[in-house]
Amino acid sequence: MQNDNRIGEECGVFAIYDPDGDCARTTYYGLYALQHRGQESCGIAVNNNRDITHYKDMGLVNDVFNDEILTKLDGKMAVGHVRYSTTGESMRENAQPLVLRYVKGNIAIAHNGNLVNKDELAQELSVTGAIFQTTTDTEMIAYTIAKERLNSKSVEEAVEKTINHLVGAFSLIVMSPQKLIAARDPWGFRPLCMGKKGDAIVFASETCALDSVGAEFVRDIEPGEIVVVQDGKISTIRTHVGKKPHTMCIFEYLYFARPDSIIEGQSAHDSRMLAGKYLAQEFPVEADVVIGVPDSGLSAAMGYAKESGIPYDIGFVKNKYIGRTFIQPSQAMRENSVRIKLNVLKSTVEGKRVVMVDDSIVRGTTSKRIVSLLRHFGATEVHVRSSAPPFMFPCYFGTDVPSKDQLVACNYTMDGIKELIGADSIGFLSVNSLKKIIPNANCQFCDGCFSGKYPVDVD
Amino acid sequence: MQNDNRIGEECGVFAIYDPDGDCARTTYYGLYALQHRGQESCGIAVNNNRDITHYKDMGLVNDVFNDEILTKLDGKMAVGHVRYSTTGESMRENAQPLVLRYVKGNIAIAHNGNLVNKDELAQELSVTGAIFQTTTDTEMIAYTIAKERLNSKSVEEAVEKTINHLVGAFSLIVMSPQKLIAARDPWGFRPLCMGKKGDAIVFASETCALDSVGAEFVRDIEPGEIVVVQDGKISTIRTHVGKKPHTMCIFEYLYFARPDSIIEGQSAHDSRMLAGKYLAQEFPVEADVVIGVPDSGLSAAMGYAKESGIPYDIGFVKNKYIGRTFIQPSQAMRENSVRIKLNVLKSTVEGKRVVMVDDSIVRGTTSKRIVSLLRHFGATEVHVRSSAPPFMFPCYFGTDVPSKDQLVACNYTMDGIKELIGADSIGFLSVNSLKKIIPNANCQFCDGCFSGKYPVDVD
Amino acid sequence: MQNDNRIGEECGVFAIYDPDGDCARTTYYGLYALQHRGQESCGIAVNNNRDITHYKDMGLVNDVFNDEILTKLDGKMAVGHVRYSTTGESMRENAQPLVLRYVKGNIAIAHNGNLVNKDELAQELSVTGAIFQTTTDTEMIAYTIAKERLNSKSVEEAVEKTINHLVGAFSLIVMSPQKLIAARDPWGFRPLCMGKKGDAIVFASETCALDSVGAEFVRDIEPGEIVVVQDGKISTIRTHVGKKPHTMCIFEYLYFARPDSIIEGQSAHDSRMLAGKYLAQEFPVEADVVIGVPDSGLSAAMGYAKESGIPYDIGFVKNKYIGRTFIQPSQAMRENSVRIKLNVLKSTVEGKRVVMVDDSIVRGTTSKRIVSLLRHFGATEVHVRSSAPPFMFPCYFGTDVPSKDQLVACNYTMDGIKELIGADSIGFLSVNSLKKIIPNANCQFCDGCFSGKYPVDVD
Amino acid sequence: MQNDNRIGEECGVFAIYDPDGDCARTTYYGLYALQHRGQESCGIAVNNNRDITHYKDMGLVNDVFNDEILTKLDGKMAVGHVRYSTTGESMRENAQPLVLRYVKGNIAIAHNGNLVNKDELAQELSVTGAIFQTTTDTEMIAYTIAKERLNSKSVEEAVEKTINHLVGAFSLIVMSPQKLIAARDPWGFRPLCMGKKGDAIVFASETCALDSVGAEFVRDIEPGEIVVVQDGKISTIRTHVGKKPHTMCIFEYLYFARPDSIIEGQSAHDSRMLAGKYLAQEFPVEADVVIGVPDSGLSAAMGYAKESGIPYDIGFVKNKYIGRTFIQPSQAMRENSVRIKLNVLKSTVEGKRVVMVDDSIVRGTTSKRIVSLLRHFGATEVHVRSSAPPFMFPCYFGTDVPSKDQLVACNYTMDGIKELIGADSIGFLSVNSLKKIIPNANCQFCDGCFSGKYPVDVD
Repeated sequence: MQNDNRIGEECGVFAIYDPDGDCARTTYYGLYALQHRGQESCGIAVNNNRDITHYKDMGLVNDVFNDEILTKLDGKMAVGHVRYSTTGESMRENAQPLVLRYVKGNIAIAHNGNLVNKDELAQELSVTGAIFQTTTDTEMIAYTIAKERLNSKSVEEAVEKTINHLVGAFSLIVMSPQKLIAARDPWGFRPLCMGKKGDAIVFASETCALDSVGAEFVRDIEPGEIVVVQDGKISTIRTHVGKKPHTMCIFEYLYFARPDSIIEGQSAHDSRMLAGKYLAQEFPVEADVVIGVPDSGLSAAMGYAKESGIPYDIGFVKNKYIGRTFIQPSQAMRENSVRIKLNVLKSTVEGKRVVMVDDSIVRGTTSKRIVSLLRHFGATEVHVRSSAPPFMFPCYFGTDVPSKDQLVACNYTMDGIKELIGADSIGFLSVNSLKKIIPNANCQFCDGCFSGKYPVDVD
Repeated sequence: MQNDNRIGEECGVFAIYDPDGDCARTTYYGLYALQHRGQESCGIAVNNNRDITHYKDMGLVNDVFNDEILTKLDGKMAVGHVRYSTTGESMRENAQPLVLRYVKGNIAIAHNGNLVNKDELAQELSVTGAIFQTTTDTEMIAYTIAKERLNSKSVEEAVEKTINHLVGAFSLIVMSPQKLIAARDPWGFRPLCMGKKGDAIVFASETCALDSVGAEFVRDIEPGEIVVVQDGKISTIRTHVGKKPHTMCIFEYLYFARPDSIIEGQSAHDSRMLAGKYLAQEFPVEADVVIGVPDSGLSAAMGYAKESGIPYDIGFVKNKYIGRTFIQPSQAMRENSVRIKLNVLKSTVEGKRVVMVDDSIVRGTTSKRIVSLLRHFGATEVHVRSSAPPFMFPCYFGTDVPSKDQLVACNYTMDGIKELIGADSIGFLSVNSLKKIIPNANCQFCDGCFSGKYPVDVD
Repeated sequence: MQNDNRIGEECGVFAIYDPDGDCARTTYYGLYALQHRGQESCGIAVNNNRDITHYKDMGLVNDVFNDEILTKLDGKMAVGHVRYSTTGESMRENAQPLVLRYVKGNIAIAHNGNLVNKDELAQELSVTGAIFQTTTDTEMIAYTIAKERLNSKSVEEAVEKTINHLVGAFSLIVMSPQKLIAARDPWGFRPLCMGKKGDAIVFASETCALDSVGAEFVRDIEPGEIVVVQDGKISTIRTHVGKKPHTMCIFEYLYFARPDSIIEGQSAHDSRMLAGKYLAQEFPVEADVVIGVPDSGLSAAMGYAKESGIPYDIGFVKNKYIGRTFIQPSQAMRENSVRIKLNVLKSTVEGKRVVMVDDSIVRGTTSKRIVSLLRHFGATEVHVRSSAPPFMFPCYFGTDVPSKDQLVACNYTMDGIKELIGADSIGFLSVNSLKKIIPNANCQFCDGCFSGKYPVDVD
Repeated sequence: MQNDNRIGEECGVFAIYDPDGDCARTTYYGLYALQHRGQESCGIAVNNNRDITHYKDMGLVNDVFNDEILTKLDGKMAVGHVRYSTTGESMRENAQPLVLRYVKGNIAIAHNGNLVNKDELAQELSVTGAIFQTTTDTEMIAYTIAKERLNSKSVEEAVEKTINHLVGAFSLIVMSPQKLIAARDPWGFRPLCMGKKGDAIVFASETCALDSVGAEFVRDIEPGEIVVVQDGKISTIRTHVGKKPHTMCIFEYLYFARPDSIIEGQSAHDSRMLAGKYLAQEFPVEADVVIGVPDSGLSAAMGYAKESGIPYDIGFVKNKYIGRTFIQPSQAMRENSVRIKLNVLKSTVEGKRVVMVDDSIVRGTTSKRIVSLLRHFGATEVHVRSSAPPFMFPCYFGTDVPSKDQLVACNYTMDGIKELIGADSIGFLSVNSLKKIIPNANCQFCDGCFSGKYPVDVD
């Protein structure tokens, strides 16, 4: 049940070089397709004959931009960004792309990920007199590029050297006066792909954004790779490629990515179907119907149904008119709060034994309310299945996992969780099965938030 | 694919008498659940100890209202309304509830439906010196109540007499200084139900609004019935009950109502599943997968899959971040316009023979784009099925059907439609099968927009 | 010190027939010049070949209208209105022009004034079944016109008959499908003038609006006169002319009107200069400098200075960046509240005996703060002079005078007022002198708010 | 006629240390009083126990801030800024105060002025790897402080050293975790004063802001002085004091400053009166009335009237309802454009020989329209007098003078200007007389924009 105070996404990036097209408008549609990766702020920078202008603000893509603004953003290269809304400090200054001047002119930077060595970098820069106007990693990457540029022959060489200083996850777009550069950290934690549309070259966090603008998928950027576009020609710097194990974030498949996205050759929808399949094998149950919690539990529920032979049906209707200004129910209506966003299809569950598949169970409070609602509408049994393993550990690479005291799996046994949420049985996909849900992806993955094992030394 | 310039909904009403509760806030949540019935404008009127105040404006419920406004709307009775955005003139004056003073003080009126004798009524009133400040039927109903009130002992008697003057569809809420009154036209074209929650009494266009505020369904208001709530007591006037055949709009089941709503005892989701079932019987085909066009084609697709034995899968992802200010693609991007809102799950359709179920096919242009998109993503065959029969005739009772020159079924043969939209085969549910999709509803229905036969003389 | 919770203005109207021009835009500029007459709401209705469209909302002219809205308001006739913000109920429904349909099609009405027999009219209409959607007199005038139209050969005849029903002040614009009609009550309480610009004919509450749009003043509409413009031809109905004494509101000259307006041949600025002159004769004092409280006290201060021979100087700077959302000072800063909007020019008053001329003293609280401020900046004596006599009585013709318990002159002697506001001496212009401040105006005037004598029986 | 595309102001600063008060709110009122110094953007930063938070945006003070925002800005120190709207690039990033982190924590900087060596500074910083996110001098000052802080014992020592690097005009506020620092460039181009209110210490660009918040004027900050407030104690660093000639911008007196402000002991209103006096001596004329162009021409007009013996009167009414969204007249109405904002008091000028005093004549286009308007309303002669000498040269210290090709005085002789604007005679105050308009100010002044002689080498 995306958007419901569960696991936070990080960011999405989109960039285009298009000698003929309306780059700002294409970026607008690309960001709109990536909106699920970040709702706090968004921005677009364009490069018009070496002159970089930009617009960014707090809010959704279709609230921030309008025709007039897009028309002013004229140029043949563009980079865009959507940013995730953390519960903590929400600063307009943090909106991206970060546009700045340095020794070689203007530059725009957009970034998805999280650096592990952020504090060390900040300290190193501070003692040379640096000033920071945001609280983002992006500003530190920008500083490092600016410093390395002083001793480099080109901006891409500066990016190449900058990667030596960065530990952690980053899918990065750099737009200089003449070049559009896409780079990915050597572990490849976060997705980044390339597409084309006629003479245009496109980079995006997910393939759904390529589809959305009518671009054909070309390939994923490799971990550690730096792709440079200049005057329509593509070159690549592979110094950092293959230097680290490729450990894609598994939670991208389970939750972050849109189901229609294909990452490292693996469809997110298919991964979720497989998660449902293995969940059915690990936690079978006699029941009459399988339902999924919308939106991201639906694929796994279908996988569970198919594997178990229990019929799949639509169990919930989610109100789609969610707006930023929606008034939360007062205490008196709190018991009904989940109903306002999610209603049960009575005819689906009444008098039935129900398997309810969700994408994850984080704090348990929402699950409890949904289970109670299903019983209210006549479900005789409710068997809860989570297509993600229990969250037990923090993520250092850009996923916003709540602290341990808020994670239900850190504070309760399986039986305890079952009782807490009022289910008749409960099951979480095992970390072992997790390994099998991306059969088409030719890489390893990071499951640190479930297993506590990280591909990088995190202190 | 709701909201996509297809068939227009009319309106939704919600009302509550609650001696203890926060009536405006409950109405807010009720209207939010009915938002799919109208997105142009909304409003709430409250009755605070005989004093009626209100707030209404253009826009969605969660854009128009905020905490401050709701807090000012203090009272023990409330009536709310959401209004449909017609393509024609969009006037703030038309927002409801209509609040006015007449010989007996203040009164608020909210209305869902359409009068057939609107012009005659206007003419009759004009020649007595009436002035009209809106272009709604509601104002004429208000005038008629005001005139009848002069010779009636009570407002409910005035409503009772008013019904004699009205021909057509209306589900009506009237809030007087002391009473909350719900009335439905003698044919019962549009739904209207009653619920309760503790001492509170609730009226709503659909049961999903009762669920949303935690009220229990009590019963539907009968065609021609007038239900009066005063000081917590419910009485009913049945003079007009049973005087006309009960002819519920069948399109409420197929499209207007939320799938979780139950109207006249019949679940809308189940109706759509049945429509899919009969569609599979009438238009079987050999295929590999059945997919539905979101949101309202999904239930019918599942029914088709179940009946045919062909596996159901998720075929599309619909972008859920739709906002009022979304910028439409320019001509250059027009071919991709459908992709921006709707993307195909490639792994579902690639290399497969696909049955695509939609709730209806009105103009054919969107279907054409979707079929083309499916082929682009590798579907080898696309068989289009519509769970509604072809639209051929206007509706006089509140559904906004395009004119004949825009209706694909008025201008093409079945083969012509198939070719126009590029499908391998096409099938529309027959009007005969339509009769079987509401087995639990104890009434007849109006299918005038499909059959051209109307329960009322329409000229 | 206009805008500071003193005496409320009523409304302003503007209308134009222009076969060649952009009527909506001209009306926009005309209303902008009349903004001082009303800041709550504004609106414009245009007539495009018998089709009347309109736009109105709460707020100032330049907040409500924009280029896009004005461009849509296409037509060859237009009528506009600005409405005063009363402290009481502020309803969007009350915004004008009132646009409505009646037996003869569309009509738009804008009105400045107040009817004395409002309640009787409402009662008469109610018992015939009328419904009221606003709380304005204008709606009742509209109803009366609609009723009279049934037995009249033309809309102007209906207006002519309507005047028989109306007691009180009204300067009225009626725009029918074919005609633009201006009418003024038989007493001529509120101003209304006519101008021309090429082939265009303009009506406006004040001549400053004619100047603002580049129109030449033609003449004032006479009390009781009805001027009809059709196809560029002007005709007049004089049935009601001369039936009542012409009693223009004297406070229009002293305060309401912009100083550059000329009403009934008399410049408002000159009237204020004269008021200052007679004030100097009635309440002379030995002093070093004369200052005026901006904005409307400045003219009278100059008149006082000239007559007395005491030098005039600028005593205050008023902050001109007033906005609707300005945050009022908290209690802790209350003593400085007046300083935020009004600062003293220290070098003008320091060490000097000061005559401070204001346009009126209503409650006394603001005067008290200003006097205290002058002393703070070193004034050795402060002699307060009001160019209006003391407010003692209500106005029934459209001026919003506070209730008697709030009027300082109803609750204190002259000495009491002097002490209350901390002045060294005080003087109000006498009602006798008032008679002499409009020597060029060929009419009597109403000074009921000062004298308690009204030209109409008010109960 | 301020705000009418004439000479651009630069900025205004306000800061307060108040152990007991609501610093954000006081700063709000202070900035409101300084609004005339900048209307593009504004901001406030507060220091709450070493933690600096801020809010800033494009727009006027009363549009940007509201109660909720101010309430969140809790702290015992605050610094605020209003920024001028240049015609060129208008960037949200440039809004101030600039809030940033550096090696010693958070810091906020607000700045009024312009550096002559901006480009050199930028170059020096760039080659050490600096990145610039704004286009302001302020960011360079911040960088320099950050760098100097590395080798300084305190932030004030860093500011002291920073001044060695800066050439040009700056009135600066720096707020560190523990200190509030005010500094002024060694020439003292721009004003900066100190006040107190109980235990609170206030800094402001002009004394009108002290008055507005009820603070008493203490003294001006001296050129080159650094005043440090820590824990309520004031200390001063005078290393840079007296190192340069004190050359206050003369145009602050003539135009920028509010007339109620007193700078270096000299009242701006009195300076303007004196300018009018000397103008009357230099350019006497036989006439019937002297009028001033509002707002800033009024004082000089009174001075002219007093010296010449010709009566002063109010010649114009300026519409005060100016808003950001005001729609500019189209070509067709262009000839009336000046009338919309400014109307003539006909009774003042009709049949008279008029002396019209304006604060300056820059391009001449507005003057031409005003002269034409005066003749339209019956002035028999129009003698134009400018209380500023002709603009001939650029300003390098923060005044936005148009380029030479736009300056009327660079392109026409006096006779040419007279003819261009249609005046009967013309007169500009001489640079010689300029020297006499600030008799109470104990300093020299910069008149570079009139004389071309600058106190600093500008290339």
